[in-house]
Amino acid sequence: MIIHLVLGAPREEPLTLDYQSGDLCVGVDYGAIYLLNAGYPVDLAIGDFDSVTEHEWQQIKKESQRVEKFQADKDDTDTELALLHALNLSDEAPIHIHNWIGGRLDHFLSILYLVYQERFQAVLSRLVFCSPKNSLRVYQPGHYQVEQAHSDNYLSYIGLTPIKGLTLRQVKYTLESADYDVPRALISNEFLAEGQPAEFSFESGLLAVIQSRD
Amino acid sequence: MIIHLVLGAPREEPLTLDYQSGDLCVGVDYGAIYLLNAGYPVDLAIGDFDSVTEHEWQQIKKESQRVEKFQADKDDTDTELALLHALNLSDEAPIHIHNWIGGRLDHFLSILYLVYQERFQAVLSRLVFCSPKNSLRVYQPGHYQVEQAHSDNYLSYIGLTPIKGLTLRQVKYTLESADYDVPRALISNEFLAEGQPAEFSFESGLLAVIQSRD
Repeated sequence: MIIHLVLGAPREEPLTLDYQSGDLCVGVDYGAIYLLNAGYPVDLAIGDFDSVTEHEWQQIKKESQRVEKFQADKDDTDTELALLHALNLSDEAPIHIHNWIGGRLDHFLSILYLVYQERFQAVLSRLVFCSPKNSLRVYQPGHYQVEQAHSDNYLSYIGLTPIKGLTLRQVKYTLESADYDVPRALISNEFLAEGQPAEFSFESGLLAVIQSRD
Repeated sequence: MIIHLVLGAPREEPLTLDYQSGDLCVGVDYGAIYLLNAGYPVDLAIGDFDSVTEHEWQQIKKESQRVEKFQADKDDTDTELALLHALNLSDEAPIHIHNWIGGRLDHFLSILYLVYQERFQAVLSRLVFCSPKNSLRVYQPGHYQVEQAHSDNYLSYIGLTPIKGLTLRQVKYTLESADYDVPRALISNEFLAEGQPAEFSFESGLLAVIQSRD
C-alpha cells in the first residue's frame, strides 16, 4: 500500500499516479481538485483551501472521504500538515509526494527542505518525491542498493549537506570514500546493466539519490 | 550591461529575456538554439553540443559571434564551463542565468549547487538565477537591502546552509537574530509597500533570496 500525497503545484496536463487498488490518496489544497479531475479517489483532502473556488470547495467536501480544513494563517505549511497526517495513516507505508514541482521556486525548495526538519528524520526512508521524469529519495548514513526504476534512467547523488566517505559501486563512474566539505551534486551516473542494482554507502551527512530521464 | 547565460533546459514557449542593447548573450548547448530561435544575438555559443542536430550545429556555427566546443567527456559540466567563460567577458557585469529549470531535477539542482563551489564564491553577488516567475540571488554574511522587482512578488529567504543571526526587517514577517542549525526555507514573506526595500542581515552561512509570483 502506498500513500499518494498530491500537492497543488500549477500544472497543465492531467495528473497520472502509479496508483493501485488499496492505495490511499491525500489531496493537499488544490491537489484535491487535481485528484478528483483525474478520476482518483480522495481519501483525505487537507489544507487551508485558500486557492480553490467556492464551487471547487463544495466539490471537495462532497467527493472526499474526509476533509481537514485549517486556518490560512498558521505556523506549518499545508504540505507539512499534510505530511504529518499522511504519516498517521500508516506506520510503514511509503509516501509518494506528487506534483510538488511547479511555478514557484520557493515553494518547490520548501518542500524539498522538509527532509532537513528534525521531526521528519525518522521517516525519511518512507518518502519518495515523484515527478513524471524524476524520483528522489533521501538517505541517512549507511550502505544501500538502488534498483533501476526505468531502463533509461540516469542516477545522480546529491549531497544535501557535507558528506563523508561516499563510495559508489556497480555504476559507470565509481567512487571510493570521497569527502565533500560543501553540498555537491554528482549527476548523470549510470546503472551498469538492467537488473543490476547500484550500490552506495557514506558515513555522515544527508544524501539525495535521484533517478531521472531526459 | 548584463551577460545573459541561456541554458538548454527543455522548454515549450519561446525564450523571453530582459535584454537591452549592449547586453551579451551566451548560449549553452541547446540554449544557443533557443537564443537564435527567439531572435536574440549569440555573442558566444558554448558546450559539447551533443544535444543539437547536425543542422542546428551548422546554424550555431554560422549565426554565432564566437563558438567554443568541448569534448562531451570532461570533468566540468557545460554550465560550469560556460559560467567560467561568462565571468571572463567582464569583471563586474551581472550574469543572469536563464532557462535553468527544466525536465531533469538533477540538472536543476546541479546548477543551483554552483553557488556552493569554492571557485565561484568571489562572484556570487554577480549571479541572478532567473525564470519567468522567479528570481534568486545568493548572499554571503552581511547587511543588505532588496528592492521589489514586481509589485506582486513574494519574498523568500532560503538558508542554503545553517544560518546564524538572521534578521529580517521592513517585511510583513520580521525576525530578530534567529539561528538555524539546518538549512531552512522561510517562504512567502512580503514587502511592506511599493518602493520600500526589504532589509536583512545574517552573521554566517549562505542565504538565497527568492522573489516569486504565483
